[in-house]
Amino acid sequence: MAGSISMGQYLFKRIAQLGIEHIFGVPGDFNLALLDELFKLPDLKWLGACNELNAAYAADGYARIKGLPGVLVTTYAVGELSAMNGVAGAYAEHAGMIHIVGMPSRSVQKARLLIHHTFEPGMDQAIYVKMSEPIRKMHTVLMGGENTAQEIDRVIEACVKSRLPVYIYVPLDVASLPLDAGHLETPLDTTVRNSDANVEDEVVRVTLEAIKKAKNPCVLGDVLAIRHGGKELTQKLVDVTRFPAYATPLGKGIVDETHPCYNGLYNGSVSFEGVAKGVEDSDLVLNIGPLLSDSNTGGFSRNIQDSQLIYLGHDYCKIHDKLYPDVHFLPILKRLVEELEKEPARYNVPRAQFRTKIEQTLLMDLKSGPIKQDYLWQRLGRFLRPHDIVLAESGTAQFGMPDAFFPPSTAYITQTFWSSIGYTVGACLGACVAASTLPHSSRIILLVGEGSLQMTVQEIGSYIRFGYTPIIFVINNGGYSIERAINGPKQGYNDVSMLWDHGAMLEFFGAREETGVKGRSYSCRSVEELEKVLGDKEFVEAGVIQVCEVFLDKFDYPWRLTGQLVIGRALAVKMAKEYTP
Amino acid sequence: MAGSISMGQYLFKRIAQLGIEHIFGVPGDFNLALLDELFKLPDLKWLGACNELNAAYAADGYARIKGLPGVLVTTYAVGELSAMNGVAGAYAEHAGMIHIVGMPSRSVQKARLLIHHTFEPGMDQAIYVKMSEPIRKMHTVLMGGENTAQEIDRVIEACVKSRLPVYIYVPLDVASLPLDAGHLETPLDTTVRNSDANVEDEVVRVTLEAIKKAKNPCVLGDVLAIRHGGKELTQKLVDVTRFPAYATPLGKGIVDETHPCYNGLYNGSVSFEGVAKGVEDSDLVLNIGPLLSDSNTGGFSRNIQDSQLIYLGHDYCKIHDKLYPDVHFLPILKRLVEELEKEPARYNVPRAQFRTKIEQTLLMDLKSGPIKQDYLWQRLGRFLRPHDIVLAESGTAQFGMPDAFFPPSTAYITQTFWSSIGYTVGACLGACVAASTLPHSSRIILLVGEGSLQMTVQEIGSYIRFGYTPIIFVINNGGYSIERAINGPKQGYNDVSMLWDHGAMLEFFGAREETGVKGRSYSCRSVEELEKVLGDKEFVEAGVIQVCEVFLDKFDYPWRLTGQLVIGRALAVKMAKEYTP
Repeated sequence: MAGSISMGQYLFKRIAQLGIEHIFGVPGDFNLALLDELFKLPDLKWLGACNELNAAYAADGYARIKGLPGVLVTTYAVGELSAMNGVAGAYAEHAGMIHIVGMPSRSVQKARLLIHHTFEPGMDQAIYVKMSEPIRKMHTVLMGGENTAQEIDRVIEACVKSRLPVYIYVPLDVASLPLDAGHLETPLDTTVRNSDANVEDEVVRVTLEAIKKAKNPCVLGDVLAIRHGGKELTQKLVDVTRFPAYATPLGKGIVDETHPCYNGLYNGSVSFEGVAKGVEDSDLVLNIGPLLSDSNTGGFSRNIQDSQLIYLGHDYCKIHDKLYPDVHFLPILKRLVEELEKEPARYNVPRAQFRTKIEQTLLMDLKSGPIKQDYLWQRLGRFLRPHDIVLAESGTAQFGMPDAFFPPSTAYITQTFWSSIGYTVGACLGACVAASTLPHSSRIILLVGEGSLQMTVQEIGSYIRFGYTPIIFVINNGGYSIERAINGPKQGYNDVSMLWDHGAMLEFFGAREETGVKGRSYSCRSVEELEKVLGDKEFVEAGVIQVCEVFLDKFDYPWRLTGQLVIGRALAVKMAKEYTP
Repeated sequence: MAGSISMGQYLFKRIAQLGIEHIFGVPGDFNLALLDELFKLPDLKWLGACNELNAAYAADGYARIKGLPGVLVTTYAVGELSAMNGVAGAYAEHAGMIHIVGMPSRSVQKARLLIHHTFEPGMDQAIYVKMSEPIRKMHTVLMGGENTAQEIDRVIEACVKSRLPVYIYVPLDVASLPLDAGHLETPLDTTVRNSDANVEDEVVRVTLEAIKKAKNPCVLGDVLAIRHGGKELTQKLVDVTRFPAYATPLGKGIVDETHPCYNGLYNGSVSFEGVAKGVEDSDLVLNIGPLLSDSNTGGFSRNIQDSQLIYLGHDYCKIHDKLYPDVHFLPILKRLVEELEKEPARYNVPRAQFRTKIEQTLLMDLKSGPIKQDYLWQRLGRFLRPHDIVLAESGTAQFGMPDAFFPPSTAYITQTFWSSIGYTVGACLGACVAASTLPHSSRIILLVGEGSLQMTVQEIGSYIRFGYTPIIFVINNGGYSIERAINGPKQGYNDVSMLWDHGAMLEFFGAREETGVKGRSYSCRSVEELEKVLGDKEFVEAGVIQVCEVFLDKFDYPWRLTGQLVIGRALAVKMAKEYTP
């Protein structure tokens, strides 16, 4: 008999058992009892963000670096609703999140008291539980029943396996209720398994046969392979097969870009010279963890036919025209790699004669003058070091960074699918925290436009408060440039305040002589100025928090953005013509 | 035949017809076509906020000053979800809001393309429409049908009548579709009427009889009277009857506090000496627009029996024990005032002998030394001038400001029911904009804690960007003091960053020599310092944007907060004992 443990501590101990070390959130009167339980556990650290949306972004960023769910604690109604867009982003991009919401006590809920954060007399106080239904895999409202521990386990396990957000609602008085601590001794089952062994066998067998037969195979790794824990396996698949390997805009970094087999970023027609042909001429595309959204397929210009394709997804697999529903790629990829490593000759890998390496494309090698989109991102790529964590904000950074070439072990965070601007400023906090737990030292490099920064800027204060030293590149191009490219380049709605003094930002948020926190700020209007900063040894070492503001012309757009827009507009015109209500 | 007009212009012209002059929001690719239509109309001005939550808060603040719905434009998914907590607050507190959401074009929705801001292949792109169901009165998704103009009218009318948020979803390609402009010539019907004239007659008649008979009547005006357009009528009721008049924490300012009949703020047991007795001993409480939430009733310690009470609500009226469902107070209040003004003698008003004026309570008259909660709020009350607009943030300001005495025509914005911290910083933008349209000049005075400020601080930049000059009192008491009072006074979760330099805030956001925008910052750690600032003629005139940081001890709480907590804890213990699952 292991004795009893409070519900709150049980929950957080289960979270700690996963390897999670940090909890993000904002306190509120309905979660304080729960936080009291958290604060009794030395293995978990609380990081209060400035607001709930930013906390959700931070939990998401943490998840992407740790490969484990981010944990978010908010309070009833005001907190959970503020976080909603952040949780939705984690849902769309499979970041994994355990969102714990403090609720009114059970007796107050039952009495339907008109307490603060409710709407009207007599209303069901669980009304907000309904609102988050589309943005979670699973949830539980802990009303103190016998099965509380099982409920917690069920929901956490579902989160880890699905890499989708889950919700755990905890009424105020439930946080301290005693549970049987003995449950903690049964490890959580978070292993992804396919329920039908025969189907899994078939997918593995048919894939291996296809690999053996293919004349011109390639590997196309995508973001859901990373999110679902398949990054290392994808790299191993490339190592053992030596097939040409490609990433996508969202999956950038899945394969070591200095690896001799890495051939570039495939984004349909919006790819560097030779890349699309490399993929599309292949007779076998091993596509792992695909996410086939507009900006991850060059505006739906990806051109891979079923006859060429083995699609290994998290929710289904498809081999040519045969669909295998509810089959997860992860166990399959593991078996494929094991089998190929064990008997490479049997599958004719690696093939000595087989080589299609595509050269890196250099867009614009500026030495002086105004900074241009086509120069900036590749230059920032050359600034990177192994193990750097790079966050590219939705906007020009997101469309520019695919041009860059990464050193090995670069971790890349971008939200090209959900595309909520301001995301990376919050996510950067989570990335900083997660990086502090990694065995190697990582620089954190945030690339954010000045408009996006205005969405979530207060979290810069959290970096300083908690002692992190990211390098923050503020891409100042005078408004919402991505929108100028889409519509109304000179319309006032695409303007933002141009009055902020980014050079004073770190001081305002806390890096000042009197606080003892050091920070440095730089401003670059020309290539010469930027080169000087990027070459500065102190800047490079990132020992203190730094801001480097980079000015670009407001009508200068990344070629990938304009390229995709051309395709998107043509598609829109075609669809509108064919549309019937 | 009036010709045709685009759907977008039709919508915005309808909005302009209500007297609304400003639209708040954030652009995003799915609403840009709609904004193009808006920008063709010179009568409406667009104000882009830094993020959607703040924009929602701004629209809410605008509504509270204008007495008309605030209009919010967001983009699909990321935008509408970010705004959710702000819309929910407008729902809870009846601020009224027209939330217009740009959606993907109809053909893209029909094809269920996996575009950005969606979740998964094949999903219904209207999924987010479901999520906002609990926080709106009504909605429409405009798919280009014949009834588009009628749909717009229906939803706008419902918003104005209910003072609740409504949603209008506009697919990208629908914004420019032609409508018959002739519809605009039929005015919108926004008048609140009771459907059953007999019932209304009865409520009016019985109320007048009760007024005539009562020995010791009083008027208790509450916030929903203000929100539903009954503020002036409530004041007139007091003018004509000369009954002792009371407000509530949320309804503060509904009656001129310098009026000889004004008797104070009734908040159950948490009221100044004599106030509760004044209300509770009355044999007829004319309670107008009640909102009976915890913090608006002294933690449910309001003690008014049905036998004393005439409850005139927005959704029902109740005279003693007789309920009149679905009867709105507004037409009734109008008729009551008309009748009483026409034949005062018939109802024995005003009564010459009847007088129960309660003296104002002065809590703490400090002249020097540290600034205390019990001094600060009443002192700030004396700083106010007629027509000032005061915003009191959730936290100590919200529990402190009820101590203050207001000059005539003070407008008061607080969110004691919904209680989302950070709200006032956004709402202040809306209040500034609305104030610029008023016939008199108003100072805007924002009272915000440093923790709440961190939630939404970027909007300070919008005040500067758009040229507004509020006075911002930053109440710095070292963390979430309201939560310290509730739970864990010394727990780390109640801390926030103490590194921000509020004295540099205006400069960071744009008030600097080089920009030509003037601002002034003050910092007060003692009563002497604060008195000096409050007596400074330049400060008082508020000609430029100003910040005055006021330091308080972190364990000093307003007495109303601790008073309510004592009651709340006792209630919680009692309810927990009686609770059965």
